[in-house]
Amino acid sequence: MHVVLPDGKQLELPQGGTALDAAKAIGPRLAQDALAATVGGELTDLMTPLPEGAQLGIITKKKPEDAAAVFRHSLGHVMSQAVGEFYRQKGYPAEAVKRGVGPAIENGWYQDFDLPEPLKEEDLPEIERLMREIIGRNLDFSRREVSKQEALQQFAADPYKHELIEALPDDQPITFYTQGDYTDLCRGPHFPRTGALPTSFKLMSTSGAYWRGNENNPILQRVYGVAFATQKELDEYLERLEEAKRRDHRRLGKELELFTIDPLVGKGLPLWLPNGTVLRDELTRFLREQQFARHYQGVITPNIGNLELYKTSGHYQNYSDSNFSPITVDDEQYMLKPMNCPHHVRIYASKPRSYRDLPVRLAEFGTVYRYEQSGELNGLTRVRGFTQDDAHIFCRPDQLKKEFLDTLDLTVLVLRTFGMTEVRLRVGTRDPESTKYVGSDENWDTAEQQIIEAVNEVGLPFTVEPGDAAFYGPKLDFVVRDVIGREWQLGTIQVDYNLPERFDISYVGEDGQEHRPVMIHRAPFGSLERFVGILIEHYGGDFPLWLAPRQIMVIPIADRHNEYGQQLVDELRDLGLRAELNDSTSRMNAKIRDAELHKIPVMLVVGDQEQAGRQVSVRERGAAGTSERKGVPFDDLKAELLERYQTRA
Amino acid sequence: MHVVLPDGKQLELPQGGTALDAAKAIGPRLAQDALAATVGGELTDLMTPLPEGAQLGIITKKKPEDAAAVFRHSLGHVMSQAVGEFYRQKGYPAEAVKRGVGPAIENGWYQDFDLPEPLKEEDLPEIERLMREIIGRNLDFSRREVSKQEALQQFAADPYKHELIEALPDDQPITFYTQGDYTDLCRGPHFPRTGALPTSFKLMSTSGAYWRGNENNPILQRVYGVAFATQKELDEYLERLEEAKRRDHRRLGKELELFTIDPLVGKGLPLWLPNGTVLRDELTRFLREQQFARHYQGVITPNIGNLELYKTSGHYQNYSDSNFSPITVDDEQYMLKPMNCPHHVRIYASKPRSYRDLPVRLAEFGTVYRYEQSGELNGLTRVRGFTQDDAHIFCRPDQLKKEFLDTLDLTVLVLRTFGMTEVRLRVGTRDPESTKYVGSDENWDTAEQQIIEAVNEVGLPFTVEPGDAAFYGPKLDFVVRDVIGREWQLGTIQVDYNLPERFDISYVGEDGQEHRPVMIHRAPFGSLERFVGILIEHYGGDFPLWLAPRQIMVIPIADRHNEYGQQLVDELRDLGLRAELNDSTSRMNAKIRDAELHKIPVMLVVGDQEQAGRQVSVRERGAAGTSERKGVPFDDLKAELLERYQTRA
Repeated sequence: MHVVLPDGKQLELPQGGTALDAAKAIGPRLAQDALAATVGGELTDLMTPLPEGAQLGIITKKKPEDAAAVFRHSLGHVMSQAVGEFYRQKGYPAEAVKRGVGPAIENGWYQDFDLPEPLKEEDLPEIERLMREIIGRNLDFSRREVSKQEALQQFAADPYKHELIEALPDDQPITFYTQGDYTDLCRGPHFPRTGALPTSFKLMSTSGAYWRGNENNPILQRVYGVAFATQKELDEYLERLEEAKRRDHRRLGKELELFTIDPLVGKGLPLWLPNGTVLRDELTRFLREQQFARHYQGVITPNIGNLELYKTSGHYQNYSDSNFSPITVDDEQYMLKPMNCPHHVRIYASKPRSYRDLPVRLAEFGTVYRYEQSGELNGLTRVRGFTQDDAHIFCRPDQLKKEFLDTLDLTVLVLRTFGMTEVRLRVGTRDPESTKYVGSDENWDTAEQQIIEAVNEVGLPFTVEPGDAAFYGPKLDFVVRDVIGREWQLGTIQVDYNLPERFDISYVGEDGQEHRPVMIHRAPFGSLERFVGILIEHYGGDFPLWLAPRQIMVIPIADRHNEYGQQLVDELRDLGLRAELNDSTSRMNAKIRDAELHKIPVMLVVGDQEQAGRQVSVRERGAAGTSERKGVPFDDLKAELLERYQTRA
Repeated sequence: MHVVLPDGKQLELPQGGTALDAAKAIGPRLAQDALAATVGGELTDLMTPLPEGAQLGIITKKKPEDAAAVFRHSLGHVMSQAVGEFYRQKGYPAEAVKRGVGPAIENGWYQDFDLPEPLKEEDLPEIERLMREIIGRNLDFSRREVSKQEALQQFAADPYKHELIEALPDDQPITFYTQGDYTDLCRGPHFPRTGALPTSFKLMSTSGAYWRGNENNPILQRVYGVAFATQKELDEYLERLEEAKRRDHRRLGKELELFTIDPLVGKGLPLWLPNGTVLRDELTRFLREQQFARHYQGVITPNIGNLELYKTSGHYQNYSDSNFSPITVDDEQYMLKPMNCPHHVRIYASKPRSYRDLPVRLAEFGTVYRYEQSGELNGLTRVRGFTQDDAHIFCRPDQLKKEFLDTLDLTVLVLRTFGMTEVRLRVGTRDPESTKYVGSDENWDTAEQQIIEAVNEVGLPFTVEPGDAAFYGPKLDFVVRDVIGREWQLGTIQVDYNLPERFDISYVGEDGQEHRPVMIHRAPFGSLERFVGILIEHYGGDFPLWLAPRQIMVIPIADRHNEYGQQLVDELRDLGLRAELNDSTSRMNAKIRDAELHKIPVMLVVGDQEQAGRQVSVRERGAAGTSERKGVPFDDLKAELLERYQTRA
């Protein structure tokens, strides 16, 4: 047999030759440094026979990160072995530790166990120590093909493995991997020996997981680990994780009293607390202003609609997984609206339109309801009811490109306002194999082509993702990278030739004939819930002045300054600024700490001197740390703060 | 027997004596002038035997308006007779005209007929002429008591009368009233003769009405008439009716493109068109500012809630006629929220509260859904989904009075802002006989007493209406008289000791113990739908500048002024003012007429002179007619309009 090397050269190997055989044939140094291999770009290991004509690549210890999925999987086996030794040290027989599945995942791996007594979080360092010991033993990983019968025999005492093996096809080889005295049923791939594995790993947590994900099965204990090629990468990852925890919008949402979710009200239905409502209202006001400037018109529509409306739009038939069950009213059926578009189409259709009236841009902060499984709900970012910053633009075909580019421009402007400058675009087109789309191929082709053309003009990086379209048209999603490097899908723009057809809407053209308008659906935030959830994490709760729910805390140094402080608060509130007085009996430093804890951006400290001169001492929290200005004339500060608020500086 | 006269004197009468007998006994002049009578304040006629000891009053032709219900009823009989003659003239036999019921109603009467051919609107003047002829004949009304058998015999040919007579009790006398050759089954009362009836009446319209209101019965033709004691009153009434038609919010709503109701979306579910949305947004912004100044905090809650929430609040059990059917989600049931209070109570309960934190004032423009029968739906004033300008104040008992008075003050201020100065109050207390209320008598007594105490302090006229309370507490409604004299129920304030108990909410008092807060529910507008509906009629569509959906129309005299006009529009819109350019090819006068038709309050006409001097000619529509100012510097006007907009002048 022969394989093909990266430089295109062919290499002859004996039948059943492995990547290690190939490396040896190339040179002893390569064989020594080799850790894993690729066949046609797919990862494999050094022990697995190569197929005839394989496009072979060898991964060496110079670039172990290229084989990260392999060393993560191998570390999973090492952990599994270590857990076995841990329980043997406790006096349990080897059979007492049974094992479910254990795959490599993003950044690490997990392994499910059925254990004689639960593993505690505080046991994890000992397991890590045992893992390092096993790595130190530098055990070879060996691969063996066995018959189904032999496999069943080997795992006679383990009902989970038994079940897995029973489910394997009879006619394919089953493989075992062994390091030292530990053998597992496994498809591989693995590193050649434990000594080659990185020690830059960490066991993260344990949790319960139903065997095979079925809640009628026993719960196994799942242990998670993460690993990187270098300690630096691991440290950075752990730091990002810590930072993400500190910024978790569910945690900050509670601490800063932004929202709460109450089971008595309903799962996935956030209650916006006063502070969160301010945030949301500020976002709404901001976008409203942008929309006024761009000649959008506001509309307001009900949260329910007759089922016939959604049958006409196709939502009822094509969106059924997300629909709530119908409500019967007299002899009609209604449904919580999953989208605002059908309502807006009916507003368009409520009077005759001429070519001179177009484009018509109808905008609504419309609250919609979509079913999500309860296990998938998450804070504000995955909910069952949410408010879209929705708009639908009805335009003539010759206006489409300009309108599309204008929505793109608006979305980029919106995101930049929040310092979200790393943006990439995802064009979701239809999957031609699927039947979940409505409308003609011609409409789809035109719409997809127009989006791609427009996106090409904008100069932002983009990818095309077939199968990601909405059921009525292709869409453009904005993917934003936040300050700690995570990506979030935010705003969306969609081009739609199909709903106008389904609702048979038209305009009278210059020629006096009826023509079909094109629709653009767009939502720069996406939804207010999701956007606020992401903003909380993006800012880590440290909102800029204009967004901060609590903007200004006036801190009197002593009781005798309370009256002056109250006067400042009243004057600031008269300007619409959100100012409060801390007239508690705490000391000044405690008051400052309290304001910092609540992430209030501006503190005005007032004592005898300030009071005498109608001044304030300004203490501000900013990206660059805390700044202080003493003896600032209050009238100057008022003007400054109002200006910063109004300009959203 | 004897009766008692208004001056307290007793008058002896023979057994079976009537008011006419009494009048004759007092004097022949009174007997001549008498039209009707009252017994204990209830209207009766001169022909009906008086009961022993009756408190008798005689109504004479000096004050016929005191017997309006009587002459309206008699005019109904006269119309009925006239319709009979009308069809006899057409050659039909008398039995061809059959009659359903025919009561007096507010301002007039109606009579149901089963006719050999339908009466047309254009026949009504002829019926009116025949009525005047019958009045001219000065026929006596006579009253006769008959047996049930005789009554059935008399109306042998009329199945409707037959059915009515069959349903009457056997042991009570049945009465017939006759004028001329027309006899009807009737309880009375009636005027003594047709010649005494006012001729200031008018037949208004005909419509279909199911026999006995049951849609399985045949449809009869119902003819409406109105009548007043004097022609002046009739003219005023007809003028008010015309004015009400001109102001009908459904008509203006369509003409000014404020809202539409679309059967495909749903009955009773208005779609707010762009112009209506501006109105609604302006109202919201206005109240938000007031609420910010009064230290309310905004919250936002979902439009649905778990059924358990409404079981806890009592809405599910006590409000079931208004509830929509539940929605099943996994193993839970949800419902469209009929009120926002349960959600707000749960927000209050989401963290511990101290006596220092109270009052907590939570405000939401919350959209709720309540079932109404489809026949009762009406434009914006009776709908199935609406947005309340809702707030709930949670306070200590010692804060209740001040908070209650503050909400009263806010509501009066809100109404005054719209020129609604004629306000009376209605205190709805519980009906102690009814079981539809939750909570202890003690709580109810306290709350009712506190409302009445507070209302007493305010100095507005009020009435107490037992049985008008909400199921959880007594309420105060604001009844406003509009510019054309109609009364509307608007804002509401309620005091509630019961929901806090049902949800077991508390605060920690100064004594360290848990205490129960009191709740105030309040909505100055009531609902945005209803308030806007009434505002449209109140202003007749001529909104003040700050509310007007379309504020400013710039009208270039010729094409060459379009560019200058556009510049003005842009500058005005930069200030947030709603300005448009009419750059059509119409002539100036047509453009002005068009702007007037759309009730745009400010027109800026620009020609050569204005353009040269950066000026405008201002044409304004106001209460006192149209005003014109020429050569106004545009910068001055901009500042003026902005000032008027911001101060809601």
